[in-house]
Amino acid sequence: MYVLHIRCILCRELGIIFWKSVPLDLNAGKRDQEPEAWGRGYMNILFIGDIVGRPGRNLVKVLLPSIIREHKVDFVIANAENAAGGKGITGPIKDELVGAGIDVLTMGNHVWDNKAVFDFIDNEPRIVRPGNYPGDCPGQGYHTYISGNCTRVTVVNLSGRVFMNSLDCPFRTADRILDEVRGTSDVIIVDFHAEATSEKQAMGWYLDGKVSAVIGTHTHVQTADERILPGGTAYITDVGMTGPMDSILGMVKEEALHKFLTQRPVRLTVARGRSQLDAVLLRFDPENFTVKTIKRVRYYSEE
Amino acid sequence: MYVLHIRCILCRELGIIFWKSVPLDLNAGKRDQEPEAWGRGYMNILFIGDIVGRPGRNLVKVLLPSIIREHKVDFVIANAENAAGGKGITGPIKDELVGAGIDVLTMGNHVWDNKAVFDFIDNEPRIVRPGNYPGDCPGQGYHTYISGNCTRVTVVNLSGRVFMNSLDCPFRTADRILDEVRGTSDVIIVDFHAEATSEKQAMGWYLDGKVSAVIGTHTHVQTADERILPGGTAYITDVGMTGPMDSILGMVKEEALHKFLTQRPVRLTVARGRSQLDAVLLRFDPENFTVKTIKRVRYYSEE
Amino acid sequence: MYVLHIRCILCRELGIIFWKSVPLDLNAGKRDQEPEAWGRGYMNILFIGDIVGRPGRNLVKVLLPSIIREHKVDFVIANAENAAGGKGITGPIKDELVGAGIDVLTMGNHVWDNKAVFDFIDNEPRIVRPGNYPGDCPGQGYHTYISGNCTRVTVVNLSGRVFMNSLDCPFRTADRILDEVRGTSDVIIVDFHAEATSEKQAMGWYLDGKVSAVIGTHTHVQTADERILPGGTAYITDVGMTGPMDSILGMVKEEALHKFLTQRPVRLTVARGRSQLDAVLLRFDPENFTVKTIKRVRYYSEE
Amino acid sequence: MYVLHIRCILCRELGIIFWKSVPLDLNAGKRDQEPEAWGRGYMNILFIGDIVGRPGRNLVKVLLPSIIREHKVDFVIANAENAAGGKGITGPIKDELVGAGIDVLTMGNHVWDNKAVFDFIDNEPRIVRPGNYPGDCPGQGYHTYISGNCTRVTVVNLSGRVFMNSLDCPFRTADRILDEVRGTSDVIIVDFHAEATSEKQAMGWYLDGKVSAVIGTHTHVQTADERILPGGTAYITDVGMTGPMDSILGMVKEEALHKFLTQRPVRLTVARGRSQLDAVLLRFDPENFTVKTIKRVRYYSEE
Repeated sequence: MYVLHIRCILCRELGIIFWKSVPLDLNAGKRDQEPEAWGRGYMNILFIGDIVGRPGRNLVKVLLPSIIREHKVDFVIANAENAAGGKGITGPIKDELVGAGIDVLTMGNHVWDNKAVFDFIDNEPRIVRPGNYPGDCPGQGYHTYISGNCTRVTVVNLSGRVFMNSLDCPFRTADRILDEVRGTSDVIIVDFHAEATSEKQAMGWYLDGKVSAVIGTHTHVQTADERILPGGTAYITDVGMTGPMDSILGMVKEEALHKFLTQRPVRLTVARGRSQLDAVLLRFDPENFTVKTIKRVRYYSEE
Repeated sequence: MYVLHIRCILCRELGIIFWKSVPLDLNAGKRDQEPEAWGRGYMNILFIGDIVGRPGRNLVKVLLPSIIREHKVDFVIANAENAAGGKGITGPIKDELVGAGIDVLTMGNHVWDNKAVFDFIDNEPRIVRPGNYPGDCPGQGYHTYISGNCTRVTVVNLSGRVFMNSLDCPFRTADRILDEVRGTSDVIIVDFHAEATSEKQAMGWYLDGKVSAVIGTHTHVQTADERILPGGTAYITDVGMTGPMDSILGMVKEEALHKFLTQRPVRLTVARGRSQLDAVLLRFDPENFTVKTIKRVRYYSEE
Repeated sequence: MYVLHIRCILCRELGIIFWKSVPLDLNAGKRDQEPEAWGRGYMNILFIGDIVGRPGRNLVKVLLPSIIREHKVDFVIANAENAAGGKGITGPIKDELVGAGIDVLTMGNHVWDNKAVFDFIDNEPRIVRPGNYPGDCPGQGYHTYISGNCTRVTVVNLSGRVFMNSLDCPFRTADRILDEVRGTSDVIIVDFHAEATSEKQAMGWYLDGKVSAVIGTHTHVQTADERILPGGTAYITDVGMTGPMDSILGMVKEEALHKFLTQRPVRLTVARGRSQLDAVLLRFDPENFTVKTIKRVRYYSEE
Repeated sequence: MYVLHIRCILCRELGIIFWKSVPLDLNAGKRDQEPEAWGRGYMNILFIGDIVGRPGRNLVKVLLPSIIREHKVDFVIANAENAAGGKGITGPIKDELVGAGIDVLTMGNHVWDNKAVFDFIDNEPRIVRPGNYPGDCPGQGYHTYISGNCTRVTVVNLSGRVFMNSLDCPFRTADRILDEVRGTSDVIIVDFHAEATSEKQAMGWYLDGKVSAVIGTHTHVQTADERILPGGTAYITDVGMTGPMDSILGMVKEEALHKFLTQRPVRLTVARGRSQLDAVLLRFDPENFTVKTIKRVRYYSEE
């Protein structure tokens, strides 16, 4: 908390933009200073779609610094459940992504696919996994971070259930988490990792006015329905994928097609070639932390 | 065939644009004239996303004439499986949509939800239902139409299987249909009505270079991944929905949410209020019928 | 409570066997007398498999009195979620079944299919529906009854989730219910209405030693795996069906086959002809209420 | 064919019972002798339920010889898709089971789980995998064998689709296979490997009168609904499992329970301890090859 305090003072006095967040231990004490406008324009949060394998990670490393500069990004969230060869995440890959400038890694139904995750998920505040896994579960379903500009950003991860695992009700889990973080968060971003558009839209409406944004992940295809819902919550059904373009969800297309044609198990590997980085940019009013715009962005690797 | 012949001559001599298609009975005889460029710029086909209930139909009636004019649309396809109260289609509604300027109505898994469809589907060449229903099945899975500008447009409807019914393999069904229509079609448009993005991308790659376009429907959310695949086929994972915006897939959002929260059966009704019309515009080179561009378009009703 | 008290005294003094249970309002007061052995041999509970439509109900009416006599049945439970035309239940049908000698009707995923259920489920202690429906839900997930021989029988209904709706975790719901009823029940019978044999066996093992019996329902096919688990709980994966034999799950076989062959919606109606009554008989030691045997029984209608 | 010829003659002349079948290559020539009654009583076929891992295999090795003697079994079929550690099959395990006295091994949805199967499935006539895998597929969906008593036994394997993979229609596949084998088979046994009781009963009725028996597999729980359908076909929804009793489908029950409770991936291993062998015995009239009885049998390992 000491370091955090110092950085906040610096930030206010000098107007310096810190790109790195500092995980906040809310149990250690109340923040002694209320966040306020610091006279430097909008606050911007970037949410990057499912990063698939090495091509996705490489594109993040190459492009993120310039994207941050271009859009004055204050805080970066990325879904990383496919970061390790398309399935799950490992310690080195987590470090690679955090080192590339991502503040928080969200997960989904593939969170446990790589067993390595159990080695660090309990001690890594930068990862949130779906909060509606039942009972005792390694890792955390949400966490509150201090953005460089002194904003308390809570990132929540939830998984859908339609066509997916029988987790706890994501709507009621959202209620429960919001009860815990409402007073201590300026901004709340929900990554709803789900398959069915109906369930995702339902979550958008359910949380409209209660959170800053509901960002869908999982389908690996960016949707064109980004909007600010009537209650003030930014919404998009799916933010898309960061990985190889000429692929099926980032995996070698011939392999995935073979699976569809034969209905036999096929080991899928991450595709190569040109990649895309899908994301949305959320722009906040720094006075009251309301979302002003949600904007889809896409970047491509060079040939 | 006589009327068709006359209209084609008129079309060539006078350069008149006919908005209405004439269903072509391919079994009745070969066309006596080859289609060719008629010196009036690109050919344009509009594909409208799932029309939901009265709000969707009304928006089509109000906007389609001006959209046709604005984009010089030669041929209009629309998915209409949710046109009757959100489930299926009836005779009057079919006539209403055709009367509004739609040339072909495609369907999907809800095709049989309104029993009225059995009264006319066998005698209505303007409707195509998924071609991979097994065995003897009312209606047709594809049909070839003569566009006003003398282009032979084959429209194919297929249904996915992932998270859906156990129909025949859509990939092999596509092969079989293509074998039948290849020599007698200038343009082939496939409506792939499917849930999973993986299966939809797989179909895009599978048919790349074999058809003019693979247009996804079913999820009611327009995706932002429209592109011309390397083989020359236009592709989009989902063209979106034509119906009420402040809804869950076009249905009253409180009802759909109630269903998610209670897990009990809830009768869903079509929502009201502001509507959107989602579509894609396909632009063809009239010399060789190759797709040059695929462009997402969206229109809104007035408040 | 007054009537209940009287009946219990009578029962003890005169050794009369009451076939009808009296719903016990546990909130109204503690029972003033502890149950004890009454010197008349084993206590027997009959659990009847899913009653399908009129043929199933008729068979119950015809056979149940003699089954009760033959096996000295003290308490009768039956799954009745398909009692009304194969889907759900109505008030008159509920009365018909209770009048035929059934003490408790359990339900399942079809509980809400007939809207009539909402008229009486909140005021009918003889019906229990799956206790793991989320949030506020009409009806009750369990209830404790006083059997005619003064035994406190708790009947719990739970629904599986594999291949079914996304209800609350049935295992944790079982824990919660057991916490509530443990001290005030002599016998606890769980109807686990589920599709997958894995989930049903899992529930058997999970509750082994904690309840008297885990009786599976839903698949309409009696299984041959009845046993007393090592912890003392009686278990069967599925108790079977009470309805027409020459059918598919009790429905007209040609209709169900048509559905499989066409993959189109088909309205299923209850079959006719010879019927079967599937059940299991649980025999308890009246001294300590432990289950001694679980026995499958099946009866057929006359031709 | 030479060996086959010799053995048939021997069989007729000496009345010797051959326990081993000889795969018949129907393409190599017509059988030169018609099967006929040989005056030694009923013909008996044993169908053993899903063999799970080493405990299941061991039980088969220990018990099968005496079961064959006890019931005068002429031909043994067993589902072996879980024979290798619960998933798939390997070459040595296949040899082990054939060596134990099984004539034909049927498979199911787990057929490809152990990659070793690709090494031998194309050259092993004793294995049949589901015949409704689409397109070119390793292995065979059915095969005709000569039983030791000169009966031509065709064994067909089909997979269901409800809650399973999107294979080709199993009903139409059955039709196609029957067209091919009808004239050259005395007995036709169908292993329908499926989850839903509805689909299994549907297959029973669909093939009633066309095949000798429809034996369900996959759920690992023996059902108590064995019967001869009105058309003369023996039917049972599921023949059950051969493997550890105190388990969940043959796997360690704590592991499977952990999966249900956490909804996280859990590696399941085959359980230990007491095992059961589930099977059905089909008794045929040797004069006309009609099924006279279907009888469930179960054997247990010693403690």
